[in-house]
Amino acid sequence: MKKPLILVTNDDGVSAPGIRALIEIASRLGEVIVVAPDAPQSGMGHAITITQPLRLHATNIYGAIEAYECSGTPVDCVKLAKNVLLKDRVPDLCLSGINHGSNAAINILYSGTLSAAMEASLEGIPSIGFSLLDYNHDADFSQATPYLAALIQYVLTKGIPKGKLLNVNIPALPREELKGLKVCRQANARWVEEFSESRDPRGQKYYWLTGKFVNDDPGEDTDVFALSQGYISVVPSMHDLTYYPAIPVLQDLEAFHTK
Amino acid sequence: MKKPLILVTNDDGVSAPGIRALIEIASRLGEVIVVAPDAPQSGMGHAITITQPLRLHATNIYGAIEAYECSGTPVDCVKLAKNVLLKDRVPDLCLSGINHGSNAAINILYSGTLSAAMEASLEGIPSIGFSLLDYNHDADFSQATPYLAALIQYVLTKGIPKGKLLNVNIPALPREELKGLKVCRQANARWVEEFSESRDPRGQKYYWLTGKFVNDDPGEDTDVFALSQGYISVVPSMHDLTYYPAIPVLQDLEAFHTK
Repeated sequence: MKKPLILVTNDDGVSAPGIRALIEIASRLGEVIVVAPDAPQSGMGHAITITQPLRLHATNIYGAIEAYECSGTPVDCVKLAKNVLLKDRVPDLCLSGINHGSNAAINILYSGTLSAAMEASLEGIPSIGFSLLDYNHDADFSQATPYLAALIQYVLTKGIPKGKLLNVNIPALPREELKGLKVCRQANARWVEEFSESRDPRGQKYYWLTGKFVNDDPGEDTDVFALSQGYISVVPSMHDLTYYPAIPVLQDLEAFHTK
Repeated sequence: MKKPLILVTNDDGVSAPGIRALIEIASRLGEVIVVAPDAPQSGMGHAITITQPLRLHATNIYGAIEAYECSGTPVDCVKLAKNVLLKDRVPDLCLSGINHGSNAAINILYSGTLSAAMEASLEGIPSIGFSLLDYNHDADFSQATPYLAALIQYVLTKGIPKGKLLNVNIPALPREELKGLKVCRQANARWVEEFSESRDPRGQKYYWLTGKFVNDDPGEDTDVFALSQGYISVVPSMHDLTYYPAIPVLQDLEAFHTK
């Protein structure tokens, strides 16, 4: 049987420990091609590069595994992989991550990792974004390996609905404390932001974003709740942002005419 | 009666013709504060600046209207406006745009304009993103003014559901050909991408993103369809990306355990 083709990307850069862990898992399950940013791209959301050219270079940091580093955003990486590198070969799966830090709840919007996975899903490629709730550079990405391998195998075998993706977050716990996978909805949490204000050596004021993540969502079916209980959260996600319940409510607007 | 406080932003930069048109409309309906990028930020999606400091400078380009230019992304502008400039004053409304070019269908994901509006909605501020289907720098942003003023007045008076936003796209038509406002869902359209490949003066290869927008969605209730018929499309939008129908389907995943 032909091995599935798996595209691996991330937003922390091609040499980050998290993508290395993901490549190790993926290479046991299929043929892997890596296309990832040449520098960290955290917080890039669904940004694309339109006013500048993009560079793409092969790298041998993963030995026999075909790997490229790209000067653009995570979404650019997926677009370049599909349209320049692979062309007629469509990946069976796209894996993005493992991100250093949570992408649960609304963080899916800010996350380059999840935006790359969403871009792949828009291209019709089943995709999964992975994040570990540990910002340390020496975080241990191996604890959840059996769960992630089982999940990837499941998606390769059974698929997920067309155009959709999975947002997977992993609590920073040793293997024996991980309770398993939990399918959830996105928590309605938010960031309470502050800006640290300071002055540069020339005396000019600047601001630096900082913030606290607050979960006001009391639901026990959310990703944030599942993570707090020691589960790996799996949120099936989509790119249709329409808020359908408001469509009939807003019909009044259609009555307005200049004529 | 106290005038409503309206935050105006965009992604084409504080001096773009589109934001000037929006400021003109907004200043007739409320007290306006402008916080917009100091340079074009198209395609930035929901990017935020986390690894660099941000600059914020007052500008008098709009005369008596309080206006600031920011070195960051459109989402950064909204965060800075709320947390640094306004602090205890919560805007009654956030308007973003008018963007130069369409943000219908999945373009909401790539758009800095719509991401700024979504960020405001996450902060609990009712918000509207506007885009004109005309990429020309000398595009005429005035044709839809009566419709946009009526829509803004409607939202100020009746509100929209908490945490939601409106994605408004305007066909590039003279006023007499505009058929009115149409409340729609986001079309399931996509970009068919190509990369133009070239070599720089040093002989190094580079790629430049280009693409064709393709609408495979046959629905007559979509924004793309409404625009093609001469309507201004209004899509109520949200930040919950959960694809709920897949939650029961994926429950099998929860059976997997390492123990």
